[in-house]
Amino acid sequence: MGLIGGGPGSFIGAVHRLAAEMDREIELVAGAFSTDPARSHEAGVGYRIDPARAYASWTEMITQERLRSDGVDFVVIATPNHLHLPAAIDALDAGLAVMSDKPMTATLSEARTLAAKAASAARPYRLSYTYSGYPLVREARRQVAEGRLGPVRKVVVEYSQGWLARPIEAEGVKQAGWRTEPAQAGAGCIGDIGVHAFHLAEFTAGRRVTRFCADLNTLVPGRKVDDDCNVLLRFDNGATGALIASQIAVGERNRLHLRIYGERAALEWRQEQPNTLAIRDLDGTETILHAGTALGSEAIAATRLPAGHPEGFLEAFANLYRDFARLLAGEDNGLLADASEGLRGMAFIDAAQVADGAWTDLEISA
Amino acid sequence: MGLIGGGPGSFIGAVHRLAAEMDREIELVAGAFSTDPARSHEAGVGYRIDPARAYASWTEMITQERLRSDGVDFVVIATPNHLHLPAAIDALDAGLAVMSDKPMTATLSEARTLAAKAASAARPYRLSYTYSGYPLVREARRQVAEGRLGPVRKVVVEYSQGWLARPIEAEGVKQAGWRTEPAQAGAGCIGDIGVHAFHLAEFTAGRRVTRFCADLNTLVPGRKVDDDCNVLLRFDNGATGALIASQIAVGERNRLHLRIYGERAALEWRQEQPNTLAIRDLDGTETILHAGTALGSEAIAATRLPAGHPEGFLEAFANLYRDFARLLAGEDNGLLADASEGLRGMAFIDAAQVADGAWTDLEISA
Amino acid sequence: MGLIGGGPGSFIGAVHRLAAEMDREIELVAGAFSTDPARSHEAGVGYRIDPARAYASWTEMITQERLRSDGVDFVVIATPNHLHLPAAIDALDAGLAVMSDKPMTATLSEARTLAAKAASAARPYRLSYTYSGYPLVREARRQVAEGRLGPVRKVVVEYSQGWLARPIEAEGVKQAGWRTEPAQAGAGCIGDIGVHAFHLAEFTAGRRVTRFCADLNTLVPGRKVDDDCNVLLRFDNGATGALIASQIAVGERNRLHLRIYGERAALEWRQEQPNTLAIRDLDGTETILHAGTALGSEAIAATRLPAGHPEGFLEAFANLYRDFARLLAGEDNGLLADASEGLRGMAFIDAAQVADGAWTDLEISA
Amino acid sequence: MGLIGGGPGSFIGAVHRLAAEMDREIELVAGAFSTDPARSHEAGVGYRIDPARAYASWTEMITQERLRSDGVDFVVIATPNHLHLPAAIDALDAGLAVMSDKPMTATLSEARTLAAKAASAARPYRLSYTYSGYPLVREARRQVAEGRLGPVRKVVVEYSQGWLARPIEAEGVKQAGWRTEPAQAGAGCIGDIGVHAFHLAEFTAGRRVTRFCADLNTLVPGRKVDDDCNVLLRFDNGATGALIASQIAVGERNRLHLRIYGERAALEWRQEQPNTLAIRDLDGTETILHAGTALGSEAIAATRLPAGHPEGFLEAFANLYRDFARLLAGEDNGLLADASEGLRGMAFIDAAQVADGAWTDLEISA
Repeated sequence: MGLIGGGPGSFIGAVHRLAAEMDREIELVAGAFSTDPARSHEAGVGYRIDPARAYASWTEMITQERLRSDGVDFVVIATPNHLHLPAAIDALDAGLAVMSDKPMTATLSEARTLAAKAASAARPYRLSYTYSGYPLVREARRQVAEGRLGPVRKVVVEYSQGWLARPIEAEGVKQAGWRTEPAQAGAGCIGDIGVHAFHLAEFTAGRRVTRFCADLNTLVPGRKVDDDCNVLLRFDNGATGALIASQIAVGERNRLHLRIYGERAALEWRQEQPNTLAIRDLDGTETILHAGTALGSEAIAATRLPAGHPEGFLEAFANLYRDFARLLAGEDNGLLADASEGLRGMAFIDAAQVADGAWTDLEISA
Repeated sequence: MGLIGGGPGSFIGAVHRLAAEMDREIELVAGAFSTDPARSHEAGVGYRIDPARAYASWTEMITQERLRSDGVDFVVIATPNHLHLPAAIDALDAGLAVMSDKPMTATLSEARTLAAKAASAARPYRLSYTYSGYPLVREARRQVAEGRLGPVRKVVVEYSQGWLARPIEAEGVKQAGWRTEPAQAGAGCIGDIGVHAFHLAEFTAGRRVTRFCADLNTLVPGRKVDDDCNVLLRFDNGATGALIASQIAVGERNRLHLRIYGERAALEWRQEQPNTLAIRDLDGTETILHAGTALGSEAIAATRLPAGHPEGFLEAFANLYRDFARLLAGEDNGLLADASEGLRGMAFIDAAQVADGAWTDLEISA
Repeated sequence: MGLIGGGPGSFIGAVHRLAAEMDREIELVAGAFSTDPARSHEAGVGYRIDPARAYASWTEMITQERLRSDGVDFVVIATPNHLHLPAAIDALDAGLAVMSDKPMTATLSEARTLAAKAASAARPYRLSYTYSGYPLVREARRQVAEGRLGPVRKVVVEYSQGWLARPIEAEGVKQAGWRTEPAQAGAGCIGDIGVHAFHLAEFTAGRRVTRFCADLNTLVPGRKVDDDCNVLLRFDNGATGALIASQIAVGERNRLHLRIYGERAALEWRQEQPNTLAIRDLDGTETILHAGTALGSEAIAATRLPAGHPEGFLEAFANLYRDFARLLAGEDNGLLADASEGLRGMAFIDAAQVADGAWTDLEISA
Repeated sequence: MGLIGGGPGSFIGAVHRLAAEMDREIELVAGAFSTDPARSHEAGVGYRIDPARAYASWTEMITQERLRSDGVDFVVIATPNHLHLPAAIDALDAGLAVMSDKPMTATLSEARTLAAKAASAARPYRLSYTYSGYPLVREARRQVAEGRLGPVRKVVVEYSQGWLARPIEAEGVKQAGWRTEPAQAGAGCIGDIGVHAFHLAEFTAGRRVTRFCADLNTLVPGRKVDDDCNVLLRFDNGATGALIASQIAVGERNRLHLRIYGERAALEWRQEQPNTLAIRDLDGTETILHAGTALGSEAIAATRLPAGHPEGFLEAFANLYRDFARLLAGEDNGLLADASEGLRGMAFIDAAQVADGAWTDLEISA
């Protein structure tokens, strides 16, 4: 694979590499790690790839790799959001498969363009919604799909972080910089993590959000994008829900929680303790499912270790890559998000940014 | 004290008695436990009070008790909501203090009437918002008030139960019956437990909700009141928030959770594990405060046992009665909700019932 | 009831009173709260009993109360351990029932004397092993007794506290004073809390300890009794086990944990989160039982509130008093520890104090 | 690296490979995966190495690899225990470094032989005590070493599993087969997991066990080795302790828990939730340290992801390999267990097998 982005200072670049290579079905061999040639080269040294394959731009990488008999099979796009579209278009046009970070693009109109391109492309385009790679998330999806919960009535999903509680973008923190810059990110909290929660809810509940009422806020003075979101949800079967996301939730690391309430049972999953899934029945019985014990085949396939040997974020991410490698080999398990899923996420982000709740004043007069 | 309501089959009547008598400052000596004289008498036997003081109506109780030199000092109102107003009016008119279940009344207009009466009454009127009696809730309030968190930015409060996930009101379950009957309850989930969450949020955050956007739903077919609520909140200082409440959340017992995020730190409290309070700082440090260890004076005063000896719901409730007994003795710690707090809750319930989120359709077209 | 002990500064006296009176079947009406008449009187005022019934000694109380038509039915012994024997003997001789704090006495020979007396007494003698009053402990006992776990193979029980991690007995802390004074306490950690763990293990596992290997230590310099114990256990059916107890376990409040492993399933209970019980099966399934949901009748009878409304230490203690009140009324549920149980505990304490593990030196020489 | 063992059906072989290659500093290029040439070849295909480098024996591998300019730098020994000695000797004799599974050997006398060899070998010999690779375990070690807890007073360590609760070795389960066969394993539970607990205790507490009193049992009828152990510990500074290990603890997956109590503070770590470490102070304050937040340099170096992105067993194991790669490059952080640590573990296993607690009968006679 060839990596676009992931230069010095990037968090997600190294993660993509570790995850992709974990099962030894994929190898990072080339990259356009930075728009600055020197930094791209420096990153290539860090990744220990052939220096000649650390390119100054993705267009150079695509061009050069096509000339090689051992050129890359696909590209991974790990850039700021505004580059997702051009990089993906170029790669797809060159006949390369694409694994892209979410959100799909910086804007909804870009997403429409890309979805159209992906629909006609010869090779697959997929998005790395990492959390859908966790074994117990896949088990949750199965439990719902097989009717264990009965019809879904309510979904509560939350993704709260605290790392942007202070205006660190003004202090030179690179990760914070582009993520709070509208021209690069497109949106703030709703696009960076809200869309993860949105995807997780739909992925597991097996239902589509049809209406919502969003409240996006910017709580850190001077910030140019939203950093806190609360959204009321309504699903296609009438189920209700709430989506809470925040990057100013002081003290939270990566609190992604999911609950789905059905007519007969409910489930709860927490990303920071990802190896258990609670199922609760009408009669008050609570059952804890553990990774590595008797689960459905999708969850088992996503687990590498015996029960009690914790797996985490990298292993979940590696599951996406394993799915992707098999997809390229012609075997599609249907769990990876494609362009239509990406487009849904962008439509949600876009509409949430313009929506504003119909606020009722709370007036009290005796 | 004299108890109005709390007849056979009542849950909250026995709880009021246990809580009120726990510290031996209050004794249940009279009651109008049911509108059915025989059932009221039966309940009196169960409570082991003087049979002559188990009355057929609260008016009889008030009249008869005033004739006794050892008559009741105050009444507790533990009836369905529609009786809160007349019972409170009669007691206050008779010069008796009142401790009433929440919500204040069945309707906002009743609440206005009662607030006006309470304002001019000789004796105190208070509401039993039980959860404000927990030591760690009081500690949370203090931590916020003393600035430990910095200015409040976001409040997330949830109160989810699953006991009404099925239409048990149609199966003769008495508790479910009146709580889902608009004429007796006034509202459904929002009035029964949503208002608890609302009060808890304001009580601890020390801020007032000024605007909200509510989504009330009835998910059990045939039910006459709401049984699920999701509400976006906005506070007087600009803080955001979400309030989630449900009675159809299968598998939940009494999941009342509170989180308050400030600029510098955040706190989290969970009712089902009430003896701890988590404080999380900007730098990632998490501190767990335990009941019985070094806390503020209000929390210590609300604790009866050494650390590690769990206290629960009854002890929290008993704290309200201890506060009330001291209030009657002239000592007011300001922690009990008065009529103005009750009115706020009713205004919230009332407005939430008519509000409807400004829904945005999620339309995706490439 | 009449209370012996429980004077000013006592923790357990107030707890006995709150617990005994919770269900209104018992009332504290008399007491010999201190060996100092003035302090006994002062305590009586605090308890709000008739001042004439706050006696200067238990012998006076027993004598005077027998002269009253409304004299006490039973006495509660909440003194330091060395007074358990004489107080119990006097009460039983006077035809009064006895509820005594554990351990039974200060020494094994005293326990033998008391067991003989109890065997011939007209009224019941019982011990307040508080933790056996928790609903989920009773449920654990039932699950084992009904064979849910299969034959018991291993029991791990721990009771760790940290309050004696410093030599606070030398700083005038009264509770620490008598508990670390051999003449009053008889033993240290093993007698104060080790015996609770011992009783809990036998109570729930339904098996008897037949052999053990004890290691008692004094880790705080200058302390006159043991403050840390680790014990290997062997049960009558060949099951193995370990009992860990400590009062110098810094940071622990009241960590009483129990695990029982059977051939087919295991269970785990934790006193500081007393309202849940985990059951784990051979196939990896974990089930969480919650107080107030579908449990056995003993657990239900021991629960006052609906699921999700936490009950704690006082309610557990109150269950013992409810059992005791019913025992006095002729109804014995067999759950209260009698003199033979008390004697077992004393035999364990006594033998542990003289035992010393057969230590193997760990010598490494290449 | 070249892998000895890890053939088809092996759990630990694949884990070694994933862990070793995670940071791309090490690559599996050769192996003697099975004593059966066909199976070794089959495993080589599974690992996707050059088929010519899947050898029929480790002697062949060592011989052939030495002839290659790109031959392996070190071998990993992941065989049953009885092969640890000869494989390590052959590798060290051939000038190859060795990373070996624990325990060091099958018997203490073998360990002495190997320790002598390692002492004189040109290249390093190290053991993969996996749990010492967890970031929070390293942080625990640092906290103790830097005096945060004060002098250590008590250590409680437990490693309980349930996978051998039934006699699955008689049902053809390969992992169970050799681990319960004395000729291959040397010991049972004490050698398989007890020694992990022993090492973890010494590694973090920074103290040496000097005496112990062990109780080893075989609870599954017909099993040839111990499957349950309880051990009283005494450390070189007088600290007390207990070590509990079991493979018949039904329902436990991989419950490795550690607690260290000092004079001023205590810490607790749990392997199944490895990314947090609790520190508890004398005054009751509990602080939770999270991976990825402000920790010591060793813990930070052992973490790959931002806080809240869980890392697990593979990442911990990979840390050992990273340490080893740096050791081979001349940089020794001192955290990897060497032959003298391995010998300590074997001395413990050996002595525990012959020791037997000095049992006291619990006799009760009135």
